[in-house]
Formats: sequence, C-alpha cells, structure tokens
Amino acid sequence: MPYFDAASAAPLHPVARQALLASLDEGWADPARLYREGRRARLLLDAAREAAAEAVGCRPDELVFTSSGTRAVHSGIAGALGGRRRLGRHLIVSAVEHSSVLHAAESHEAEGGTVTRVGVDRTGAVDPGAYAAALRPDTALACLQSANHEVGTEQPVGEVAAACRAAGVPLLVDAAQSLGWGPVAGDWSLLTASAHKWGGPAGVGLLAVRKGTRFAPAGPGDERESGRAPGFENLPAIVAAAASLRAVRAEAAREAERLRELTARIRAGVPELVPDVEVVGDPERRLPGIVTFSCLYVDGETLLHELDRAGYSVSSGSSCTSSTLTPSHVLVAMGVLSEGNVRVSLPAGEAGGVSAEDVDGFLAVLPEVVRGVREKLGVPVASGPAAAEEPEAGTVVVDALGKRCPIPVIELAKVWERVPVGAVVRVLSDDEAARLDIPAWCEMRGQRYEGEEAVERGAGVAYLVRRVS
Amino acid sequence: MPYFDAASAAPLHPVARQALLASLDEGWADPARLYREGRRARLLLDAAREAAAEAVGCRPDELVFTSSGTRAVHSGIAGALGGRRRLGRHLIVSAVEHSSVLHAAESHEAEGGTVTRVGVDRTGAVDPGAYAAALRPDTALACLQSANHEVGTEQPVGEVAAACRAAGVPLLVDAAQSLGWGPVAGDWSLLTASAHKWGGPAGVGLLAVRKGTRFAPAGPGDERESGRAPGFENLPAIVAAAASLRAVRAEAAREAERLRELTARIRAGVPELVPDVEVVGDPERRLPGIVTFSCLYVDGETLLHELDRAGYSVSSGSSCTSSTLTPSHVLVAMGVLSEGNVRVSLPAGEAGGVSAEDVDGFLAVLPEVVRGVREKLGVPVASGPAAAEEPEAGTVVVDALGKRCPIPVIELAKVWERVPVGAVVRVLSDDEAARLDIPAWCEMRGQRYEGEEAVERGAGVAYLVRRVS
Repeated sequence: MPYFDAASAAPLHPVARQALLASLDEGWADPARLYREGRRARLLLDAAREAAAEAVGCRPDELVFTSSGTRAVHSGIAGALGGRRRLGRHLIVSAVEHSSVLHAAESHEAEGGTVTRVGVDRTGAVDPGAYAAALRPDTALACLQSANHEVGTEQPVGEVAAACRAAGVPLLVDAAQSLGWGPVAGDWSLLTASAHKWGGPAGVGLLAVRKGTRFAPAGPGDERESGRAPGFENLPAIVAAAASLRAVRAEAAREAERLRELTARIRAGVPELVPDVEVVGDPERRLPGIVTFSCLYVDGETLLHELDRAGYSVSSGSSCTSSTLTPSHVLVAMGVLSEGNVRVSLPAGEAGGVSAEDVDGFLAVLPEVVRGVREKLGVPVASGPAAAEEPEAGTVVVDALGKRCPIPVIELAKVWERVPVGAVVRVLSDDEAARLDIPAWCEMRGQRYEGEEAVERGAGVAYLVRRVS
Repeated sequence: MPYFDAASAAPLHPVARQALLASLDEGWADPARLYREGRRARLLLDAAREAAAEAVGCRPDELVFTSSGTRAVHSGIAGALGGRRRLGRHLIVSAVEHSSVLHAAESHEAEGGTVTRVGVDRTGAVDPGAYAAALRPDTALACLQSANHEVGTEQPVGEVAAACRAAGVPLLVDAAQSLGWGPVAGDWSLLTASAHKWGGPAGVGLLAVRKGTRFAPAGPGDERESGRAPGFENLPAIVAAAASLRAVRAEAAREAERLRELTARIRAGVPELVPDVEVVGDPERRLPGIVTFSCLYVDGETLLHELDRAGYSVSSGSSCTSSTLTPSHVLVAMGVLSEGNVRVSLPAGEAGGVSAEDVDGFLAVLPEVVRGVREKLGVPVASGPAAAEEPEAGTVVVDALGKRCPIPVIELAKVWERVPVGAVVRVLSDDEAARLDIPAWCEMRGQRYEGEEAVERGAGVAYLVRRVS
C-alpha cells in the first residue's frame, strides 16, 4: 500500500531502527552522571552530536538536540529574538513558512514585537530583493525555509543569507524538508530541522546556532544541551536520528535522481490525465520527492478519502472541512487554486520507498477518482458555448452564500453555459477559499477576474467574473 | 554491575521495549492525518492516553503527553499562571522541589511575578499548616511534589491539596518520583510526571489539567495535544510509556515491599558500618526505593567515583565540584549534612532490578571506600579528649578560606583535639557548603553551633563552634 506523505512523516529508516534498538540498551542513563552507565550515555550523545553537526555543516558545540522540529523552531526564534532584544523587535518571515515559524511570529506579535511577512511568487519562492528590502535597522531576526513543505519549491537561501549578513541580521533557516538531501548552502546563523522528516524517529529536532550569534534562551532552562533545550535527553532517539541522517545522506544523490524522475512523471501526467488541474510549485528548483496539484470542482477531503480507499496515502494543504475554514496559507500566498489540493511526497530509501509501479498505479486511479468526486458534486462535464442572447442588465448572479468550497466555483461553472461573451457574473460567497479559487478559475479558463465588491446585506463578498471568450 | 540510580533514570522496562518496537512499525505516521497510517497512529495515541489517564486518575481529555517531565512542569506552571494572571501573580513552591519547578519559579520572578518557597523540616517534608499559611488572595498557583527526588520523603499532598481547594487555588503536583508506585491522593488540579522515571522511555512526560482549571498555554502553540504540547507526537515512545506505566503498577505492591525491605537494610546498616554518617529523609513516609545518607569528612564526587570503581552506580545531591559551588538545595532546606552525600535509588522490577545480594555487596564495600577517601584527605581517625589547658583568648581559629567542601570541616576536626571544653573555634570559610556542614557537624558531635559572623577582611564568613563536651 503506497504511502505518499513523507513530507508529514517518513517511515523509520532501517539504520534508525537499528541504532534505536542498540541505544535502548546502552543509552538509557543520564549522560550528566559520572558512573559508567552515564559515561556510556555521554559518549553516545557526543558521537551523535558530532555526526549531526557534520551533516549540518557546523561545529558540534553549535548544535543542540531538541524534542521536535517545532520545538527547535520555537526555541531558536525566541532565543535569537531575546539575544537581540535591545537592538530591536522586528522579525521577518516568508509568507509560506511552516506553521511552527508562523505561530512563533504570532506569539512575538502578541508580546509587542513586529513582523513582516515577505510574499512569494506563483511558484512559492520569495524574491531575494523583496526579502532584502524588508530588512530594517530594528530587525532582530529573519527566517526563511530552505524549501517549502507543501509545494516543494526551494528558496533562494544563499542570496537571502548574504543580504542578511550584509545588514548584520541573523538568518534562521528551517531546513526541515531538505536536511536529509544535503546541507543548507549560504551563510546562515541559525538552522532547525526535524528527524522524523528524514526517516529518523519522532521526538528529535536539531537547533544549530553559529558562534557569534547572540542568543538568550526564553523561559526556564536547565544545564542540559547548553541551556537551550531543557529536560532529560532522549538519547536513543537522538542516536537513531544522527545515524539515519548519515545514512540518508549517503543515499541522497541516487535517491534524489530516482524520486525526481518519479515526481516529474506525476507533474507531466496529471494535467494530461485529469481535466481542470493546476500543478503548483517550481518545476525545476524543487525538492526531489514533492509534487502538488489542485483539481477544480473537487472537495479536497473527499478526494483524499477516495484516494485512501484506492490505497494511496496523500496529504492536502486545503481540506475544506468545517474545522479548517481557511485554505492553506501557502497556496493563498502563491495565489494558486486551493480546492481539490493534493500533495504527493514520496519517501526516499529502498526500504519503505516507492517504486515506479506505485506512481503509475496512482496515475492510473487518479482520473477515475477525480471524475467520481466531481460527479457526486454535480459538476458540469464540459463548458458549452457562450449563450446567444444577453441576459437582463448584463449580469448573472450566482448566490453561493453559506456554501463551502468547492461549491461556489461549481455553481459558477454551472451557469457559465448561459453567460454571453462580455457579460459579468457576480458570485456571492462567504467562503474564504472563494477569494483564491474564483480568480484561479478565471486564470485556468482564460476569463477575466474583475475583483470583489462588498455585498450590501449579509457577510459575503461578490466576486466579479467577465466572460471574454 | 548494580545500578542504584533509578531516581535519575530507570532502565527500560521490558514491556516498554516491546511496546516501543511494535509501535515503531505501527505508529510512525502523523495521527492528525486521515489516511490509514494516520488513523492507525491515532488509535494508538488514543489508547495510550486512556491507559495513562486511568493510571493518573483523570479523564483522557484532561491528559496530554509532553516531550519530557521537565517540559510538563514548565508548560503546566506557565499555563496555570497564565490562566489566572488577572487574579494575581503569586506562586507557591516548596523549597525542595525538583529543579524544573524551581527554574520555572525563577523564570516567573524574572518576569515580575512573586514566589513563596515553603520550607521543610529535617526529614524534608513540608508542614501542611505552614504551606496553607503561604496562600494569599493573589496566589495563582501552588506546587508540591508528591515525594522528594533526593531523599525519598513523601509530602502531605492530600492535606495541602485540601487547603488549596478551600482557598480556590489550583495545586500542581510533580509526581515524577511516585507515579509508578500509585496514583496521587488528594484533590489536585494539575499533575506532571516523567516516563523514564518509571521504566518508560525518555522523551515522554505527562501533564494532566483537571477540567475547570484555568489554563492558558504560554508561547507559540499548535493544534496538537489540546494546544498544550506543540510539535509532532513522539508516538512510539508515548505508547511505550503508557504500556510500561500499566506494567509497573501491576507489580507495584510487591516491588514496593521488596524495595522497602532493601532500603531499610541500608538505612539500618550504614550508620552501624560507617562512622560519622547521617541518614537523611523520613524513615517511614518515604518512597520504597530511595535511601540517602551523608558522610562527614568526605568529598562526594570522590566517593561516587570510588563507588563506581567498586561497581556501584549511585548519585549525590552534593558534588562539591567546581561547576556546582552550592550544595543540593534539598539538603540545604532540610538543614542536614551535605558533604559526602550519597543517594541510593533502587530500580524496581525483576528485569533490571536489584537483589538483596546487590545491596549486601554495597554494604560490604562502603565502609572501606569511605575509609579510603577519608584517609586520602587526612581526616583524624577519632577525636581525642578535650585539651587540658585553655588556649589564648579562649578561641581557636581555623583558616579554611579558599578550601572547598569537605576541607573546612576536616580542618575543624583536626584542631578539635586541642580545643578545651568551653572554648570557641572560629572556622573561616568562603565555601557555601560550610554554612550547612559546620552546624550539621555540631549536631552530629553534640557540640554547640553559635552562629556566623562576617569576617572583617575578605569574602569569607566565620562560623563559631563552642566545645561543650
């Protein structure tokens, strides 16, 4: 049963499993103690730190182990902001960071700090010039992911790091999605990562802080991990994390080539096999194993459910469920279609990895699954020609108030047949996703999106679409 | 090779190991995902939560898993203080809490809060009346451990919880040392614990917050663990923690009896076999597996080192190393001898547990080890009779400035022979441990401690000891 959600969590690498088992016996004691069990644990911890530091490209005394990637991000951001508090309280992040970075930014704002969120282009990448322009004299810290977790786009970390260095601002790089593939290039000051993303165990994050970077840990601490990660070290998991990082790195070049070929097959195949699909993310500057696409007229959660029934475990940046009323912040920032969003992220490695047959199987079932979901939702099969006569007052109103994504776009498609060229459709909707998906629909259909207007009564918005062909 | 430091970390329980292995295969995926691997992980997480909640004595939705006991304490204290911030910023802790609680209290003070540290008696227990007297209208939270981690003394949690409840103040109980033995009695509001203390894996703590307790998590959060423990759940370790808690509980009554007999043997045997020893902690109201004693005229670190060489891994609340200039805060609060401190904490369970032979072996080597350390330090073998004639001005001065524990007390013992009854010895010392150890020496020797005086020049203090017999 193919598992296509490695960007959420990868199955344990065989080397991680082996190292974990060995250190359950050898590494359960407190490495701070001086008796033999403690000394043994200390040796294991030191060796793991050296191995991880080598993979990161830093000195062992610059690297600490945290209890998760999220914790590494939270502690890294808080510590860097704390260390430069007197210089200013301005924080820069990209608009497409992982939620752990964005949550830390919100927390900083709630405590009186200021945050600039640098936007991205339609591929999901920040523009280095725009990022550099956000640097201010009171900027305490800048954050940029090495690559995006939802669409796989690689960020221009080297150029942004150079701009930050020139401005004397430390750059924190969230390398959660890329560290298994290779070290982060560029002159970063802080780096974070998460072991379970590269096939290591859960419960281990990395936080590297380059010497010379001001750092004042927030909250209560203790003497462990240089005062940067309080609590008893999770040593067996740390050993397994370091061992598996070394192992995936040894396989990285070969696996990258293999997965890049498989995701290219999906990138090319999906638009050919499924109508009304937008593949998102940079086609070249991207992680080897991630490919993301959005399907018009499809409810993402139903699509995921049907793919799961067909045997494929995939994820979505947009779930259209009642608990998540807003679409993925990444897709919003990119300005691409959010409905029916599917992220395929292939696990690396021969054990637990995916084969070309798995990918071909997915491409074989996807068109039928999407067709089935659309059929249930009553989507018109194809757009007919434009209506011959002009309707009253030159506009058609689609009232989709109270309807969730993807219904507003489906209702728009349903009336399209009787909209004459030149006429405007007013789509009334109170669903946040419509703000993204109606312009995206226009772009995909070659029609003109003319903006939104407040609706006189009620909470919704009118989205204006002009038929141009 | 007997391991006698279970209060630091216990070897992994066989049930924990088995559960960990099984859930490495079944529980690596994200429990928030809806596909089959995610659903399987969710089922494991739910089952672990139910088992842990049953052992704690709370509802499953009142319990979250954190990444360590320290993290549970930090998050629990910060959340409870945050939830009642408008009512006041006063925090009560006992003086003998684990460092994680005291660090959180220091952090609270640094942010402008106030802290009362309730003292303990010579056995290490708080007086419920004294604790209740510390409650104020602006008290936001009270903290009390269920039992002390250094000397094993059980705290009167039930009575303190009742006083807190009557005052409308939530009580957080740090149950790290006792949860494996049984649920915490009394009407507590929050409870914390650490899996690797009961034979579970590292990387798992518990935080229970009773319904109705105001709680506002501090810092950035996410949607995991009710917003109280951000970051990807360490599921295999959580499953192992819950399974092993259930397993150690099933063995608890029998193991408690067995360990209580073994520690009673040490409590009785050490003072008989080793001269100038003080056994500390409550002889009755105590954890089954912990016994602590201090040896006059002994450097704790050397003693631990020699016991390690003899094959016994023990710990000390007082290490007299250059990195730890102050003696254990627990022993200070109790007012007992800190030098040459040894904590024996026996692991429970048949696998990895200790036998009567192990304990007898320890009692067989201890006297010789202590004698050897004392000999190296030049300790007088026995105190001679009082000197016949009065020295000049009726005082003897011992200048131990610049000397670390246990030297000041050894220097005192060296001059004692020539001190006549009625005379006063002024011991000059700038070592913090002397403040504790010189009065403790007087108590053990039946001599009179007459307080301390500032020394005119220099940073030290003069401790006054009058020879009364």
